[in-house]
Amino acid sequence: MPTTRLPSAGFSITIRVSVTADASAIGRLTMCVGEAGAVVTALDVVDSDHVRVTVDITCDTADSGHADQVVKALEVLPGVEVHKVSDRTFLLHLGGKIEVSSKVALRNRDELSRAYTPGVARVCLAIAENPADARRLTIKRNTVAVVTDGSAVLGLGNIGPAAALPVMEGKAALFKRFGGVDAWPVVLDTQDTDEIVRIVRAIAPAYGGINLEDIAAPRCFEIEARLRQELDIPVFHDDQHGTAIVVLAALTNALRVVGKQLADVRVVVSGAGAAGTAIMKLLLRRGVGDIIAYDRPGALHRDLDGLSESHRWLAEHTNSSGYAGNLAGAIRGADVFIGVSAPNLLTGDDIAGMAPNAIVFALANPDPEVDPREARKHAAIVATGRSDQPNQINNVLAFPGVFRGMLDAHAEEFTEEMALAAARAIADVVGEEKINPSVIVPSVFDARVSTAVAAAVRDAAPSSRG
Amino acid sequence: MPTTRLPSAGFSITIRVSVTADASAIGRLTMCVGEAGAVVTALDVVDSDHVRVTVDITCDTADSGHADQVVKALEVLPGVEVHKVSDRTFLLHLGGKIEVSSKVALRNRDELSRAYTPGVARVCLAIAENPADARRLTIKRNTVAVVTDGSAVLGLGNIGPAAALPVMEGKAALFKRFGGVDAWPVVLDTQDTDEIVRIVRAIAPAYGGINLEDIAAPRCFEIEARLRQELDIPVFHDDQHGTAIVVLAALTNALRVVGKQLADVRVVVSGAGAAGTAIMKLLLRRGVGDIIAYDRPGALHRDLDGLSESHRWLAEHTNSSGYAGNLAGAIRGADVFIGVSAPNLLTGDDIAGMAPNAIVFALANPDPEVDPREARKHAAIVATGRSDQPNQINNVLAFPGVFRGMLDAHAEEFTEEMALAAARAIADVVGEEKINPSVIVPSVFDARVSTAVAAAVRDAAPSSRG
Repeated sequence: MPTTRLPSAGFSITIRVSVTADASAIGRLTMCVGEAGAVVTALDVVDSDHVRVTVDITCDTADSGHADQVVKALEVLPGVEVHKVSDRTFLLHLGGKIEVSSKVALRNRDELSRAYTPGVARVCLAIAENPADARRLTIKRNTVAVVTDGSAVLGLGNIGPAAALPVMEGKAALFKRFGGVDAWPVVLDTQDTDEIVRIVRAIAPAYGGINLEDIAAPRCFEIEARLRQELDIPVFHDDQHGTAIVVLAALTNALRVVGKQLADVRVVVSGAGAAGTAIMKLLLRRGVGDIIAYDRPGALHRDLDGLSESHRWLAEHTNSSGYAGNLAGAIRGADVFIGVSAPNLLTGDDIAGMAPNAIVFALANPDPEVDPREARKHAAIVATGRSDQPNQINNVLAFPGVFRGMLDAHAEEFTEEMALAAARAIADVVGEEKINPSVIVPSVFDARVSTAVAAAVRDAAPSSRG
Repeated sequence: MPTTRLPSAGFSITIRVSVTADASAIGRLTMCVGEAGAVVTALDVVDSDHVRVTVDITCDTADSGHADQVVKALEVLPGVEVHKVSDRTFLLHLGGKIEVSSKVALRNRDELSRAYTPGVARVCLAIAENPADARRLTIKRNTVAVVTDGSAVLGLGNIGPAAALPVMEGKAALFKRFGGVDAWPVVLDTQDTDEIVRIVRAIAPAYGGINLEDIAAPRCFEIEARLRQELDIPVFHDDQHGTAIVVLAALTNALRVVGKQLADVRVVVSGAGAAGTAIMKLLLRRGVGDIIAYDRPGALHRDLDGLSESHRWLAEHTNSSGYAGNLAGAIRGADVFIGVSAPNLLTGDDIAGMAPNAIVFALANPDPEVDPREARKHAAIVATGRSDQPNQINNVLAFPGVFRGMLDAHAEEFTEEMALAAARAIADVVGEEKINPSVIVPSVFDARVSTAVAAAVRDAAPSSRG
């Protein structure tokens, strides 16, 4: 029961085609593309003579296979010649997505003497004498490392550091765009916990914060815990805390819509990896009493043997009734389902068995735990991780503002209070008058979000300068 | 016999002063600053009423102590009140000198979908399938790590990673300004050779080259050698190879001026650390036969015991006559003196004892091995590392073009052939008709330099793409 993918800009291609130049020639091309299921977004005439015309047809497709089908459909049209197909996503990536810019012009000797030798020596000495000055006189003030070992990249799995780099560059671009934060990708050619901890500790002097990214559980928990202990800058694992913040924000608004209270709801979470664990910890902290966690060992409960350390913790702090059945059984009568696990675990019928006014966050990407169209028939509110569905749970609502706030506050650690404050800020941006079952989170392009989150985090910071 | 420092922009300050507003008030202020030995570069009226005027006086001073004297001189003037003194070098450093910029606009969902999820996943998979694609589709194509452990920063010594950061940021700014290279500071909180090698190896996937910087000898030699062996991207220790390239370029032109040949000259090098060793190796490679190396153990020769590995190598490849006397004796009759060591080791009389048409490169910074004004009385050509003297030997002539060339060639290593080609390119930029005893190297602002060096290095690269 796979979700049918819709055409998206992520799979946009440009096809250069020549066709005999009669009155309806170009119409036949666009119709063909449309009939093949793609969406034409641009049409540019490249060249023409009295007989033929060459055009670039740009269209969104659903995925690589679909793009091939679209091209094939054009190739078999009479009088049509396909020249080349370029993939706009690949074109955008040529040479990478970020660059290092100088904030000083270095036009002449005067500027050179202040930015570099001999002037720079005095700045070095000032920091040597007072290390705290590094936050004032260097990039440390505004710079975050985006650290990965490439072991759990998007839904792609363990693809290694080089292949993870485009995601980390994209993350850095988002950090700048939405938070004004300078972020730099640190992709590590090691998946050894001790080694990763040592490396991050060693590179830390240049950074005001560490954003761990796409590191597999349970390794990510130990790396984060040890770095938090050893560093005097905040360490934030976005897959955990970014997701947890946005889920709590969305759940806060979803409960507002259906008129339930966090303390009263029964929540089932499928997937007790990095994201699921952090979500549940934050929900517990926020006062949710009844949670059942579901992962490979089944429903986590006290009497299970052989659990990992983090699963053991969850077994002891959730599922007070000791439920040991399957996932479909767990969600029967539940108020909230949160999936951060795998595609197509549940059917519409399963959702129909939840409590009235059920809330379903099916966040597995790209294919959710339940087809959102089926879920919507039975639940009051449905959210996914997809950008082509309403209520997208997207970490970009959290991490730029969270780091903006922590950097501005010169925070030395990321705290649960900051997470709660950030979630509240995101939820409140939507506003009483705009909120409805299809709008429980703000748009990622809403400029108020990162400002509000930054202010909330700054206020919640122990060392607030606010 | 310290060299008197001249006022420079590296020590530029702005003094805010109020003074009784009579006709000659401001004139008295600037005269006072001038008499104190500073150079007024700007005068801005900030505020005034019928009785007083407040001005910002910006002036270059010689050093921090001199700046204090200038301020004190103003403070004792009758009717003058000094409000605040701001240091333009520190102002320029606030918040750091480089930033991370996004090359993609991320204005709307379409751009987000291509730069980040879901589009980015396909780019990741392409690199996972063909790792060489990282050079095409990520920042690796144009990005260099500037790596230091903060152990030998400028002339400041072992000041550690945080205090070294302003130098590495400045270096990154120079890389961009002069070579179009994206460089990122990696300042390491460890000075353990094994650890540094492991860390650089681990972070390498994001980079197309490694620039080692300000790492103390002899550790720097082992780190460089091991990284060269282990990495498939070029590793370049600028303190060694950048200096060696520019020294060879300058010496090539100096010898042109005095009409001597490299193969015939007797060279004395004071300082067999990172720079001196690399200089001598490159001179030997280029065919200089007679070199004496001088360092803490004295003149390095075969019969000395207890030498470090690199000094042992030099003892065996230089000083064929086994000279064992002092430095002053070594340079008697020598054609070329190259100092990369410590201030004020030699006098004008020592230089007078060199061969006719002597060449003196006194590169210790900020105070050279011999006062350049004294040296100039006796030598045909004098060069220093200082920007306020003619013939500045400045690494910025080499490293931006060298890395530009290596990145463009997709070079997997830095070679001696590249060093020789870069030195030749730098020397040739000056041109037959411009060359003279005060112009043996091009200006650092000569835009032709990095282009010429990049082309030379690209041509010399084994995996040249033409």
